[in-house]
Order: sequence, then C-alpha cells, then structure tokens
Amino acid sequence: NETAKAALGRATWKLLHTMTLRYPKHPTDDEREALRSYFYLTSRLYPCGECAAEFQQLLELYPPQTASRLSASGWLCFVHNKVNERLKKPIFDCAHLDDEYDCGC
Amino acid sequence: NETAKAALGRATWKLLHTMTLRYPKHPTDDEREALRSYFYLTSRLYPCGECAAEFQQLLELYPPQTASRLSASGWLCFVHNKVNERLKKPIFDCAHLDDEYDCGC
Ligand SMILES: Cc1cc2nc3c(=O)[nH]c(=O)nc-3n(C[C@H](O)[C@H](O)[C@H](O)COP(=O)(O)OP(=O)(O)OC[C@H]3O[C@@H](n4cnc5c(N)ncnc54)[C@H](O)[C@@H]3O)c2cc1C
Ligand SMILES: Cc1cc2nc3c(=O)[nH]c(=O)nc-3n(C[C@H](O)[C@H](O)[C@H](O)COP(=O)(O)OP(=O)(O)OC[C@H]3O[C@@H](n4cnc5c(N)ncnc54)[C@H](O)[C@@H]3O)c2cc1C
Repeated sequence: NETAKAALGRATWKLLHTMTLRYPKHPTDDEREALRSYFYLTSRLYPCGECAAEFQQLLELYPPQTASRLSASGWLCFVHNKVNERLKKPIFDCAHLDDEYDCGC
Repeated sequence: NETAKAALGRATWKLLHTMTLRYPKHPTDDEREALRSYFYLTSRLYPCGECAAEFQQLLELYPPQTASRLSASGWLCFVHNKVNERLKKPIFDCAHLDDEYDCGC
C-alpha cells in the first residue's frame, strides 16, 4: 500500500524537520547526545522496514550533525534529499527550511 | 499558531501509533530498551515545548509499556486519550487501532 507508506513518510519528515528547527542553537553535550540517539532509534523503529534499512545506511554514510540548530537542520535536509534522489523526487532547496516548517509554538 | 501545532501533533501521533503497531509481538530486551528510550527522547525533543512538558508528566505517571506489541500500542492509545481528555477531544476506542493505522509495509 504505497499511499499509506507515503502518508507515514510525510508525517515523519514533518516531525523530524520541525524538531531540528527547534533544536537549540547552542546545545549542551546532553542535548547533542539526545538528538543523536533519537535519530538512530528512529532508524531502528521506523515502521516501514525497507525505509528503516535505507535510513540506517544513510546514517552510516552521513552521521547526524548535532553541533547546532543550523547543522542539525541542514544535515537532515541533506539526508532527506538523498532519499528524494533515490525515489526520483525533486530536490528541496534547504535555504527554504524556515518558511516550510512552523511548529506554531 | 494553533493550526501548525495541531498539524504537528497529528503527524506525530500517526508515526507513534504506527510504530507501536509494528513493534515486535515478542520483543528482545534490546528492542524493549530501544522503544522505551525512543519515547523518553521524543518527550525531550518534541518541538512544542508545552506539549513536551505535558508528555514528560504523562510518562512519569504512566511509564511506557514495552513487553509486547499489544501492551505498547495499548499503552500509547491510553496516553493519547489522556491528552485528548485534557484538550477536551473525543476519547478514541482503542479496539479500533488496527483499522486506523496502516503503514503500508
Ligand atoms: C526516514 C525515512 C526513510 C524513507 N525511506 C523510504 C524508502 O526507502 N522508500 C520509499 O518508498 N519511501 C521512503 N520514505 C517515504 C518518502 O521519503 C516520502 O515521505 C513519501 O514517498 C512521500 O513523499 P512526498 O512526495 O509526499 O514528500 P516527502 O518526501 O514526504 O516530503 C514532504 C514534504 O517535505 C518537503 N521536503 C522535501 N524534501 C525536503 C528536504 N530535503 N528537506 C526538507 N523538506 C523537504 C516538501 O515540501 C515535501 O512535500 C521514507 C521516509 C522516511 C521518513
Ligand atoms: C506527545 C504529544 C503531546 C501533545 N500535547 C499537547 C498539548 O499539551 N497541548 C496541545 O494543544 N496539543 C498537544 N498535542 C497535539 C494534540 O494532541 C493534537 O495532535 C492536535 O490538537 C490535533 O488534534 P486532532 O483533533 O487532529 O487529533 P489528534 O489528537 O492529533 O489525533 C489524530 C487522529 O488519531 C486518532 N486518535 C485519537 N485519539 C487516539 C488514541 N487515543 N489512540 C489512537 N488514535 C487516536 C483519531 O483518528 C484522530 O483524528 C500533543 C501532541 C503530541 C504528539
């Protein structure tokens, strides 16, 4: 069921991008470790097994960047674009992240 | 911005419920620890600060149940209903979880 898989992907990317864009500009070591672990756990627990395996490979090639909000959100945008590339979807211009994701908080 | 906050909430619940419904029926200790950590990290990193604080309190009162797919998905449904209660939203009948969440995988 491709529609359900796509809807789950959209929901997940929305959460992940919004999260990195609210991540501290100057995180503590503890906050960095939390974000790092969060991505690895997501890659283990993501409900679409094929997607989880793909995400695990990407994390191996491109480990999460957690030094700042800018590096984390830029890293995630890059990784999402790697998935887009593989799925033959348009590449997103990471300069527009701030306009796209508003958590309303 | 309440609309953005609601959209983020819907996306997140979708991911979380789908995840527990794909969680192993007989998880290993390692898988149990992964799911447990994932929920605590979500409660720290969730982009809406007020919602994150609320979720942390719920986790303290009702720690994640990770012994099986049934216990994890039932626990999350219960916790989501606690949020619904506070927000004066309808209570969801947890018997319908399987019909509602399809990851297409
Ligand atoms: C971790 C992960 C791995 C996945 N792996 C697979 C897989 O292996 N196979 C598979 O079929 N599906 C996979 N998916 C689902 C897939 O990535 C899409 O979510 C799904 O196909 C729906 O695509 P979409 O066109 O609606 O846009 P999505 O890719 O879901 O993106 C949603 C919206 O985000 C914006 N966006 C697009 N690119 C970026 C970017 N680089 N940075 C920020 N915002 C962006 C755009 O506005 C877009 O409409 C995966 C999803 C996740 C979360
Ligand atoms: C962890 C977390 C904490 C939140 N805390 C707050 C907060 O403190 N304040 C705030 O304003 N918003 C909070 N939100 C957002 C809020 O819960 C809703 O997501 C948002 O208001 C949109 O509501 P909705 O009516 O679209 O349905 P949602 O509650 O988003 O639910 C989406 C869909 O899931 C189904 N559903 C409903 N209940 C359940 C259940 N118990 N089990 C399974 N499926 C169910 C229904 O089909 C529903 O339409 C939080 C979100 C999350 C993820």
